[in-house]
Parts: sequence; structure tokens; C-alpha cells
Amino acid sequence: MKVGGRAMRTIWREGAAVFIIDQTQLPHRFAVKALARAADVAHAIRAMEVRGAPLIGAAAAYGMALAVAEDARDAAIEAAAALLLATRPTAVNLRWALDDMRGALMPLAPEARASRAWARADEIAEEDVASSRAIAAHGLPLIEAALAKKGRGPVEILTHCNAGWLAAVDWGTALAPIYLAHEHGIPLHVWVDETRPRNQGASLTAWELGEHGVPHTVIVDNAGGHLMQRGRVDLAIVGSDRTTAAGDVANKIGTYLKALAACDNGVPFYVALPSSTIDWTIEDGSRIPIEERDASEVSEIAGATADGGIARVRLTPAGSPAANYGFDVTPARLVTALITERGVAKASREGLLALFPERRSRLAGE
Amino acid sequence: MKVGGRAMRTIWREGAAVFIIDQTQLPHRFAVKALARAADVAHAIRAMEVRGAPLIGAAAAYGMALAVAEDARDAAIEAAAALLLATRPTAVNLRWALDDMRGALMPLAPEARASRAWARADEIAEEDVASSRAIAAHGLPLIEAALAKKGRGPVEILTHCNAGWLAAVDWGTALAPIYLAHEHGIPLHVWVDETRPRNQGASLTAWELGEHGVPHTVIVDNAGGHLMQRGRVDLAIVGSDRTTAAGDVANKIGTYLKALAACDNGVPFYVALPSSTIDWTIEDGSRIPIEERDASEVSEIAGATADGGIARVRLTPAGSPAANYGFDVTPARLVTALITERGVAKASREGLLALFPERRSRLAGE
Repeated sequence: MKVGGRAMRTIWREGAAVFIIDQTQLPHRFAVKALARAADVAHAIRAMEVRGAPLIGAAAAYGMALAVAEDARDAAIEAAAALLLATRPTAVNLRWALDDMRGALMPLAPEARASRAWARADEIAEEDVASSRAIAAHGLPLIEAALAKKGRGPVEILTHCNAGWLAAVDWGTALAPIYLAHEHGIPLHVWVDETRPRNQGASLTAWELGEHGVPHTVIVDNAGGHLMQRGRVDLAIVGSDRTTAAGDVANKIGTYLKALAACDNGVPFYVALPSSTIDWTIEDGSRIPIEERDASEVSEIAGATADGGIARVRLTPAGSPAANYGFDVTPARLVTALITERGVAKASREGLLALFPERRSRLAGE
Repeated sequence: MKVGGRAMRTIWREGAAVFIIDQTQLPHRFAVKALARAADVAHAIRAMEVRGAPLIGAAAAYGMALAVAEDARDAAIEAAAALLLATRPTAVNLRWALDDMRGALMPLAPEARASRAWARADEIAEEDVASSRAIAAHGLPLIEAALAKKGRGPVEILTHCNAGWLAAVDWGTALAPIYLAHEHGIPLHVWVDETRPRNQGASLTAWELGEHGVPHTVIVDNAGGHLMQRGRVDLAIVGSDRTTAAGDVANKIGTYLKALAACDNGVPFYVALPSSTIDWTIEDGSRIPIEERDASEVSEIAGATADGGIARVRLTPAGSPAANYGFDVTPARLVTALITERGVAKASREGLLALFPERRSRLAGE
């Protein structure tokens, strides 16, 4: 997608150098950062300079390539994988990318590993772009249908958190169909939930939509229900951190409230996700453990000062505790459909198995 | 209620001097401010140093008393009323208090007006305290019932925005039953929605609960649904800015989302309100116009810096527009009951008329 009129990705390489957009500085500063060693990649993941499951996977792959370029021996590869895995040990895509890279490299002679590592990391990045593009293509007809139903533009779309190209290598998940619709000339406008406490909507989604030229408005997380009640939202599209085999969706805290409001007002509520986020081992989302993060993300916030600096301020009384739940679970009954790289599915076990029939026998065998 | 162990109100007088807590400095600084003239009161209302419908009414009454103490002639009284009304022209309690004061003063000879003005302003403040205490008494059994149902403490109560004593003269509306339950030794814990964009929960509700010693935790507005799903909320109590004759509730933006979640999870959802907020001329809340406030309340936020100062920071990209809707409407079907100074009513026309039978004939005559 575009930044300042120029097409960009969140991660790319030039020869043996890897570059990222440092997302911790957005939306106030746009900074590109060079990563020269695997340790630099580990730092970037840990410090959330890169974030979003697909992007973390691609970054880890490039981290392995950087490690191998320096030392292609078995021990060095294992050490790099361990270093990178420790940055976000629960990230599914991270583990998957590291396993993939080790599987591709270990059978080769050390002298053949560096070129294969770069090639495989590039492939992992391209596969993610292809997956996002496929989600865009499958989601586009849903936006076209909303326009046809409404009879006039703009189609008003609500989204929560950041499931855009900044969370992937390009295109994104929830925002991918929106970018494609915009490219096709469909008039649209995006309501961007600021997404407390980390404000990924206000800082990342608003920034990437603005840079690409997509009309949007930032709202507080409290406002979406009211907008739906007054007919100002034609559809909602959000991402998913983890999707159960029955279609329950664990996503950024607050997603459930928007799904309730969409249901109450007859607004279609779509969840866009790469199939890598589907956890085929769980049916019931209410059993998913919800991460509690540091309370300071609720009690303090950072922003740009009038003089161009960045300041961190405290919002709560010094003596008041705060709690910080990272995700909530939206039950499948509130999800109109899931948009995956294979197509659109009903949010149910049967809906998902129709798109991923290879899982049918595996599940039956379990 | 208590501040630093000492009982306080939001507004009080000592002889011919009026004092307020400057709420714009909370929660980071506790400052008492003396108001010497009607113009000082007008400034305090306009600058939101005092806010909350009942408190604005009491402040306006004291503003009239200050004006009369200076000049008791008809023209001076009318000028003071006009000055005060212009501060928040849509505030129902403001207009009511000013009309009440004019009605009490104009029939009197100018030399009798000053003492009557102070006495009537004191009465208006005391009437508000009595109304809040009555709401507390009627709400208490609902909290006792939640404890009985749960079988053990603490009773977990969620609230949104600030409908506490800082919004009234003392006790408040939504928080009044909570303070009374706390006084009765009922173990309880309050989940405080931070309430973006103005953060009245994080800055005012958390502060007043903390100062009074009521256990509480600040959460982002996104979190309440998740807490209800996981059985961590036994009941919700919120206030109301305007209640229709059929029981629809216009309250701070985001209230509707919490009511949806409460309904979805079988959590009782109560609305506490003085009957002065009931608009007997409207049945259907979806017809209530919703105020749009300045977008900078969404895109910027103020807080305390590490060095003890107050800083304002920008949260959104410079080029991204923001929209700021002040209220939403919770339909009566989602409200378990209304708690008024007359008792607890079903959120319906019949429920309200049973408590306010004098309205029955008036409505029939319209």
C-alpha cells in the first residue's frame, strides 16, 4: 500500500539488508529501520516495532536469513531460532515460520544455506501477500453487495483495531477488501475505532488509510453502537487473532461489543482471517484463556506534544488500580461470515470444513 | 462523601462565599475554588469546573444568590439569569434552577431578596442531596439481592461515565446505591469504564471511589463485555442524561454497548436517575438528537506527566478526521429497571406512571 504516494511494504530486503517500518513511532513519525543481524530482528519483534501475526512470521524468517548469512552452521541456526522464538513465545506464526526455515535449511550443506534462506524468507513474505490479496478478492463482493443494497455511496464500514497492511506484509486482512474496493473505485468511508488501550486504530489504521488515500474518521470505541443505531454503518469487518473450529473469534478486546451492536441493528459483521489463525483443536471460544497485559497500558498513554515531541501521560488517579484484558471472544452466532484466503465461510464448523475439507478427515481421526 | 478522610460536597457556602471543587483538575490535583460573583459561577459552569446536571442546577442557584447579594434590583436579577443560562443553554436543570430562583425572588421587595436567595439556594442543594439519598435507598436492595444470589462477596458492579457525587451535590445517582451499600458493609468492587473521550470514569469516578475507600478497578470501555462473558460482573448501574416517558435512556456514549452485553449475559442493567431527567414529552429515544462535540476531545487527551505537570498530547495522525458523539440511546428493552428517588420502576411507560401517577392525567390531557 502507499505511504506518501509511494508503494511500500512493512518489511523488505535489498541484497543482504532487511528494512522495516518502525511501527512504534507511528502515527507521529515515519521511520524506516535497517536490521543487520538476527538480534536486531528479535529486538524489533520484542519492542513491537513490527507486530501483527503475519508480519511477525515474515520478520522471523528474515531474522533466520540474517543469522545464516553470518554463520550457517547447525548450532548458529538453532541459536537464532531460539532467540527469535523467545521474543513472543505464544505467537503461532512466529513458531511456524521458524520451523519452516529450519526445515528448509537443516537438510542442506552449510554452504548452500544462505542463498536458500534468503529465497525462502522472500517466499514466506510473498505467500503472505498472496494470502492477503486472496482475502481482498473474496471480501470485495461483500462490499459491492452493500453498495448495491444501499443504492448509493459511500459504503460505510466500521473496523476495530489494526488488521491492515501494517499487521501483514501488504494489504492486511480486515482492510484488504477495503483497499481493493477503493482501488475498484467503490465510494467508501471507514469508521476507525481508536481501540483502547493500545490505540492501534487511532495510530495505525487511521495512518495507513490516510496515507493510501482512503476516506476515514476516527471514533472512540464507545461510538460504534450509536452509529449502527442511526444507520451510519453498512457493514463491519474486523480481523481475528485466533478462530475456533466452530467459528468463535478471539480478537482485540471490544470486538464482541461491536458484534452485539451489529447483530442488534441488522448490520453484517464480517471477520477476515488467514486460515493460519484457525485453531482446529478448539470448538468453544469461551475456553480460550485471555491474556492480561500490563495495567500501565490503561493508566498511561503516549502522544505527540504541540512542539513535536512524544510525551507519556497518566490518565487515572495515582491510587486507582487498572486491569488490562487483551482480547475477547465473539461467539460465532454474532458473525455473519468469515472471509479467508480460500473464500467466504459461514462461521460454523460445517462452514469452515467446506472450505478446508482436508481438515475433515484429520478432525474425524482425532 | 469523603476526600482524604474528610466529608465534602461538590459545592458549599460559608456565609456569603461559595466554594466548589475544580473538577477540571481531577484526578491529578485537588483544588477548591472560591466563587465570589455570578460571573465566577458562569465561568465555572462554562469551563466545566462544575458539571453534572444536578450540580449545575445547584451552582446556578448559588450564582443567582451571589448576584442578588451584590445588586438585588429586578434588572440585575434578570441579567444574572441570562448570563448563567447562556453557559449551557440545553441543560434542563440549569434552566429549572434559574426559573425557580427568579420565581422565589421577584415577588419580594429588593431588600428581602438576598437572605431569601441564600436560603433558597441552600434548599435546592439540600433537595438534591435528599433526592440522591432516596436513589441510594431504593437501589440498595438491588445490590443486596445480587449478594444474596451470588452467596459471597464481593458484589461486582460495572459503571460507565461519572454519575457519582461529583456530578451532584453529594451521593450522586448511579454511585449513590454503591456508597450506601459500602456504608452498610456489603463487600463490593466497582469496574470503572474509563469512558472515552472525556474519560470521566478514569478521572472522576475512579477518584471519588478511591477517596471514599470503595474498591474499584479502571478498565477500558472495550473490556466490560468480556468481563460479563466471564461472569465477572454481577450488575451494572449507570446514570441518565435524559429518559423518555417509555424508559429509553440517553446517556454517555457507549452505554448502549454495555446494555447489549448485559442483556446477552443475563446481567441486570440498572439506570439510576432523578425524575428531573425524565422527558415526559418523548416516548421514542431514537428520536433524541445526539450532540456532536469537538473532534479534539477524541484526537487529543490530557494527563499528568512524570514531573507532576499536565500535558496535552495528540493521539491520531495529523491528517485524520475524528468525530465525537456525546451520547447514545439505550432502548428500554435492555434496561432491567430504573432507580428513581420515588422507587424502582420497570423501564416502560406503565412502570414510570406507576411511580409518577400525577403524570398520567397530564399526559392524557395532551
